[in-house]
Amino acid sequence: MSINKIGIMPLKRIKTEGGDVLHGLKSTELDYQGFGEVYFSLVEQNAIKAWKRHTKMTMNLVVPVGLVKFVFFDENSKKFITHEIGEKNYVRISVPPYLWFGFQGLDSNPSLVTNISNIPHDPEEVERLLPSEIKYTWELL
Amino acid sequence: MSINKIGIMPLKRIKTEGGDVLHGLKSTELDYQGFGEVYFSLVEQNAIKAWKRHTKMTMNLVVPVGLVKFVFFDENSKKFITHEIGEKNYVRISVPPYLWFGFQGLDSNPSLVTNISNIPHDPEEVERLLPSEIKYTWELL
Repeated sequence: MSINKIGIMPLKRIKTEGGDVLHGLKSTELDYQGFGEVYFSLVEQNAIKAWKRHTKMTMNLVVPVGLVKFVFFDENSKKFITHEIGEKNYVRISVPPYLWFGFQGLDSNPSLVTNISNIPHDPEEVERLLPSEIKYTWELL
Repeated sequence: MSINKIGIMPLKRIKTEGGDVLHGLKSTELDYQGFGEVYFSLVEQNAIKAWKRHTKMTMNLVVPVGLVKFVFFDENSKKFITHEIGEKNYVRISVPPYLWFGFQGLDSNPSLVTNISNIPHDPEEVERLLPSEIKYTWELL
């Protein structure tokens, strides 16, 4: 799967008294590919979770709290692509299967990654590498 | 709809280096009723968002960050029911249509309510009342 297939969708943050309302994903959106599971990953400042890839799952990633750097790696083209998303850049990233990814917390408080995935978690379709197995220079804050 | 139809489902929080992984909702769970939308509501400490009810939507409410008090009101029985959910009580609340609800942030930082709903947002199926229109004594911290 090409790294060019990663989708970026700006999301609405609606100013609301007492706390804003933030969009995530609707079944009526063009890039909706079915619902399997919603789960969350907290990531502490500077903590790095890497590397992982799915062979079936399309991930829809949203960061409603904090700021997270995502790094995607395409094994075929050997290309990296990075996106910093969260409160300062409130978008949804759509990630097709077969791309390696890792992520790092950039906020002083734990950031919250929400994955709205098109299939439920299935350990059989997850592949992992040690951080050192894909050479990428993560910057520490 | 009876207030007894509100469902409480304990959710897993998986200890993970760098930040925990938290379950939300899977399509394979028995109480899954279809996917319409995921959206988030932040709620500041002591802020109260009330009252609202849906005439079609079943809400699945999860609070992965912070702590939130939910108050549900059944117009027929005139009964209130409350649940405090969040990091300290990590459960999913499933709320059928036709129940009035309001919620209050209990954490010093903004709390994050995630609603995984069975239909996309539709203003036509939302009813609202002013906070004063249902008498409930919210406690301030």
